[in-house]
Amino acid sequence: MRLNFSKMHGLGNDFVVFDGIRQSVSLSEEQVRFLADRRLGVGCDQVLLVESPQRPGLDFRYRIFNADGGEVQQCGNGARCFARFVRDKGLTEKDAIAVETASGVIHLHVEADGRVRVNMGRPRFEPASLPMAVEQEREHYHLSAGGEEITLGAVSMGNPHAVLLVGDIDRAPVEALGRELESHPLFPERVNVGFMQVVDRHHVRLRVFERGAGETRACGTGACAAVAVGRRWDLLDEQVDVELPGGSLTIRWPGPGQSLWMTGPAAHVFEGEIEL
Amino acid sequence: MRLNFSKMHGLGNDFVVFDGIRQSVSLSEEQVRFLADRRLGVGCDQVLLVESPQRPGLDFRYRIFNADGGEVQQCGNGARCFARFVRDKGLTEKDAIAVETASGVIHLHVEADGRVRVNMGRPRFEPASLPMAVEQEREHYHLSAGGEEITLGAVSMGNPHAVLLVGDIDRAPVEALGRELESHPLFPERVNVGFMQVVDRHHVRLRVFERGAGETRACGTGACAAVAVGRRWDLLDEQVDVELPGGSLTIRWPGPGQSLWMTGPAAHVFEGEIEL
Repeated sequence: MRLNFSKMHGLGNDFVVFDGIRQSVSLSEEQVRFLADRRLGVGCDQVLLVESPQRPGLDFRYRIFNADGGEVQQCGNGARCFARFVRDKGLTEKDAIAVETASGVIHLHVEADGRVRVNMGRPRFEPASLPMAVEQEREHYHLSAGGEEITLGAVSMGNPHAVLLVGDIDRAPVEALGRELESHPLFPERVNVGFMQVVDRHHVRLRVFERGAGETRACGTGACAAVAVGRRWDLLDEQVDVELPGGSLTIRWPGPGQSLWMTGPAAHVFEGEIEL
Repeated sequence: MRLNFSKMHGLGNDFVVFDGIRQSVSLSEEQVRFLADRRLGVGCDQVLLVESPQRPGLDFRYRIFNADGGEVQQCGNGARCFARFVRDKGLTEKDAIAVETASGVIHLHVEADGRVRVNMGRPRFEPASLPMAVEQEREHYHLSAGGEEITLGAVSMGNPHAVLLVGDIDRAPVEALGRELESHPLFPERVNVGFMQVVDRHHVRLRVFERGAGETRACGTGACAAVAVGRRWDLLDEQVDVELPGGSLTIRWPGPGQSLWMTGPAAHVFEGEIEL
């Protein structure tokens, strides 16, 4: 089959995006692996497939496939690219888009400046939500790692995050300590580890060691987790710019019981046509 | 400017190819770097630009730009992609194509099976052609490296190559010994290092440590150099299949004073359109 696609990225997290509404798209795991291959295929972190919704009241459905061919849950950077895609392609003229994903319905807003705001759901601090092997929920957890006593916050944004405060993000031991904490016995399903430097109450700098992947350039859920933990520690105000190695995201969290919103860029790189 | 391009690869060595005849293409170094970026741009090892010839009697001119934006000399994998491109795009119907490059005129043949045969010029064994800091040309050179006595052949295919014989290519110390030989004082401008296992007189297995790049999946000039040296040592017949990690090339060299021909695949991956 001959398919049109767009290549897009959100802070360097890159996607091959297919319109599965105007063209019929059915991808095998092998085809996804080929598309993701950076030398033999198109090259991307993930493949996004935009479809018509299966439930009434929603605008679209989208599916995400990892480079290994498996279907995965939602991703903040991918959600922003999805929203730009359906607007740029004229698939909708709405500013507010409700979309069905493998991890539930998400709500997206295309802002006047072209950035996209994503409702990332409520942060969940209960240990069972990560999961985390402790008896009681706390604001601060203390443990030993890298030969030192470490203090961290823990939160689930759909996936588990540990957040540490550091004085200078450029000198943080992201690789070594991240790897050790990722597999710490406290986190039976492992954990993403964020290293956060608080510049002021509206601005943090963040590096994230992602579970199974190592340090990445822009972890959307990691930015949300850092702000949720920083708010809980009363270090941050409601709206915070999170400066990641790949670029900046704006995170807004009114507080407990409320959804957290992430605003960030989505870039269109090129249009493609491929025979699969 | 809005430009059409093709993404192609030759044994995994990948290219963004522009038709600079039917569209006007002028690329700054910054634009080439953007195009080559595998996350923010299209992603490739090199950018190929096809132009009209500047000299009479030739069919085309092509230029190659590295990922850092600089213009470089010809490349066997790129030459094959170029030939497939001008045929697939209907820019010529010839089977034999003469093309002007930064390293002189090269002759290409599109074969019936779609593979492309490239005249890679004459191997040059004179030490000054590499250059190599020895007084006299020899079939075998002996030197110390990696704590052992090493025997190697040396040849220029436009770029300098050292070739070693190994018993089992899978266990060859390509990284360690390649790196040491690359910068050996015998080779003042450094050297590409090929590790060759002779399977029979028509079939070798080869891994190449490329100067400044490390081990690569398919070095075209390295395959030529290995066969030239293997022929000189009388281990090989006129036509040899060279099995590289990225795929196979067929090399034919009648012998001293003759040109060497390389035949191999060129794959079209997708068509693209980008705003630069």
